[in-house]
Amino acid sequence: MSRMTRTPKNLIEATAAAWDAVRDRGPLVQCLTNTVVANFTANVLLAIGAAPAMVDIPDEAGPFTALASGMLINLGTPTHEQRTAMVEAASAARATTTPWVLDPVAVGALPVRTQLAAQLVADSPTVVRGNASEILALDGAGAGGRGVDSQDWVDDAAPAATRIAQQTGGVVAVSGPVDFITDGTREAKLSNGSVLLTRITGGGCALGAVMAAFVATVDDPFIATAAAVSTYNVAAELAAEKAAGPGTFSPAFIDALANLRADDLRSRVRIS
Amino acid sequence: MSRMTRTPKNLIEATAAAWDAVRDRGPLVQCLTNTVVANFTANVLLAIGAAPAMVDIPDEAGPFTALASGMLINLGTPTHEQRTAMVEAASAARATTTPWVLDPVAVGALPVRTQLAAQLVADSPTVVRGNASEILALDGAGAGGRGVDSQDWVDDAAPAATRIAQQTGGVVAVSGPVDFITDGTREAKLSNGSVLLTRITGGGCALGAVMAAFVATVDDPFIATAAAVSTYNVAAELAAEKAAGPGTFSPAFIDALANLRADDLRSRVRIS
Amino acid sequence: MSRMTRTPKNLIEATAAAWDAVRDRGPLVQCLTNTVVANFTANVLLAIGAAPAMVDIPDEAGPFTALASGMLINLGTPTHEQRTAMVEAASAARATTTPWVLDPVAVGALPVRTQLAAQLVADSPTVVRGNASEILALDGAGAGGRGVDSQDWVDDAAPAATRIAQQTGGVVAVSGPVDFITDGTREAKLSNGSVLLTRITGGGCALGAVMAAFVATVDDPFIATAAAVSTYNVAAELAAEKAAGPGTFSPAFIDALANLRADDLRSRVRIS
Repeated sequence: MSRMTRTPKNLIEATAAAWDAVRDRGPLVQCLTNTVVANFTANVLLAIGAAPAMVDIPDEAGPFTALASGMLINLGTPTHEQRTAMVEAASAARATTTPWVLDPVAVGALPVRTQLAAQLVADSPTVVRGNASEILALDGAGAGGRGVDSQDWVDDAAPAATRIAQQTGGVVAVSGPVDFITDGTREAKLSNGSVLLTRITGGGCALGAVMAAFVATVDDPFIATAAAVSTYNVAAELAAEKAAGPGTFSPAFIDALANLRADDLRSRVRIS
Repeated sequence: MSRMTRTPKNLIEATAAAWDAVRDRGPLVQCLTNTVVANFTANVLLAIGAAPAMVDIPDEAGPFTALASGMLINLGTPTHEQRTAMVEAASAARATTTPWVLDPVAVGALPVRTQLAAQLVADSPTVVRGNASEILALDGAGAGGRGVDSQDWVDDAAPAATRIAQQTGGVVAVSGPVDFITDGTREAKLSNGSVLLTRITGGGCALGAVMAAFVATVDDPFIATAAAVSTYNVAAELAAEKAAGPGTFSPAFIDALANLRADDLRSRVRIS
Repeated sequence: MSRMTRTPKNLIEATAAAWDAVRDRGPLVQCLTNTVVANFTANVLLAIGAAPAMVDIPDEAGPFTALASGMLINLGTPTHEQRTAMVEAASAARATTTPWVLDPVAVGALPVRTQLAAQLVADSPTVVRGNASEILALDGAGAGGRGVDSQDWVDDAAPAATRIAQQTGGVVAVSGPVDFITDGTREAKLSNGSVLLTRITGGGCALGAVMAAFVATVDDPFIATAAAVSTYNVAAELAAEKAAGPGTFSPAFIDALANLRADDLRSRVRIS
């Protein structure tokens, strides 16, 4: 068992502190993401006090990564031009040690992004975020997912997550009813959240951008990633209490993020 | 008069049964759609219990069509790369008999998509969905529309719709205050809906995705298409009762779809 | 001091009249805009009674500009294909004297769009809209912005705005807590609005589309631009009164635009 899971109170307090730090800093987060969720992702970043910048064309993406506090690459709808920009941005992130997050959406199931994901992983993402089938596919063990619906259980993906973390030197976060996070040494299981997050598009994708904001702000990527997941999922719980369905959940979730206090995290974060 | 319009009660019950079947199956719906409505479309699909997958790049689109339960091609913002993917997906749909929907947005008015629509129709879409001016333009008789605002009446487009249906061997649905649906033999006029659906972007485009979910689930494309239209429009009526304008209508509509029961359809579907 | 700022009551009444005229005409507004805000922009246009048409591919964009009442070019996510279409549309706007708006998002900070913006300005946009750092960058005096967060004060940008207006023969609008508008001769400072408009993505971008609707309807571009800004910002104030945060602000804002009356403007517009 990892140090962190043995001392959950420390991780809860670290989550509250990370949230305050993100609020104070307002990191500039560059997103190269899919067209389906770009609007929601930008609004989520604004709600947590970050500054979103969707700079994703060649010759701009790389130079901008050097200026950004953090960066996200999400492979949801990777056009040819965006793929070129992604390679440029990942390379710039590595060269300038800009923290960045890779979300390999639907990797394994689809050939173009599967090859690209393998290439991007070599640029040592600070965090790799995916559902179980994506993490398994990235590890080369899975048959790939069904779009963004994971069919593998999070526990099955833990060994693959650990291997990827050891390969990249970064953190891997596997999303599911219980989220699993590891940096290859430490592990945490986080159990906040709402099923409504899985009933809106971008519920997972926007979390990748929030992770980028947290790793841009907090020195320890493992704590930053765990804090991002818990913060995001506690806001989802608060929003679910006000929602009549997935439609009203979306605006309530943005409000909940914007209005979230560190004390909400202290009283609600669950680490299992 | 068609058999269906002579027996409206059967179509109402078939609509309720189709809705339950879509809920049970949760079809995987691939969308090659425009960037303006991609988010709303994905959220509508999630609300009806389907799994959206916006796979629209070359070398991925075609292989994915073979895996998908249903597929949508919407010509709203057809970039060069997306056009290549659309041709690939339509060809794959034909080869694998995957049910698919063609929404020829603004065809007639704009040259690139007009040529593409003519090419795609040859791959025998299961459903063609458009407003009256688009259907007239696709039939070669109209001067084209004004973007997505139809200036021709639905009745004027009925002969064109019938001709296209006979050409493709599929269904044609003409949207308007009263929706007209034909498979070249049978006809139905459906009169549910809310004007608020025309005051939000994607109100028509997302219906195309819902049709793809229904034709992926229900064997008879005519019944599937009629059921999709009625289901969608009844949810719009329920949402309109809760909305203070088009802004609050959108989330209320997603909620209404997510919460819709077959009995709501039994009591509300109107076939004229 | 300009004539307009000396006679604020006339500008207020002109704003109310412009609003009614936009409602009556329902202008067709072509948008070549970024993928992040396309949905919100289209919904804002529908809410004010305009017809949005996101026609932004080469060989369609130019011909469509000739048919459109007004046009917007927003440089938020300018792909190669969209850049070609933007040059085509700006050229067509000039040739057909179609009123159009240029929103040079993040110009100065990013090389590809900075070069493109300089080229587009030569086609004499009816309105240039930006934050202070973008206007300074376009004038060649600034170091560029931090994405869409302006770090320069509006007052500092007034001389640059005036120079650009004199160069283009059009209007320049600088957004900020107080909006500054000039046509090189006349000036106005407008002080409605809500901070929530800066907490959602597209709050500024959609205003560019609203300006296109107003300059398409009202003969005097200076009055049209001022009226667009005041109308948009008064709706934001009304929405802010109903919002619990940026999430619920978005739908409330669309509702407020859809429900806005000329008398709301008469009682609320503030010209400083």
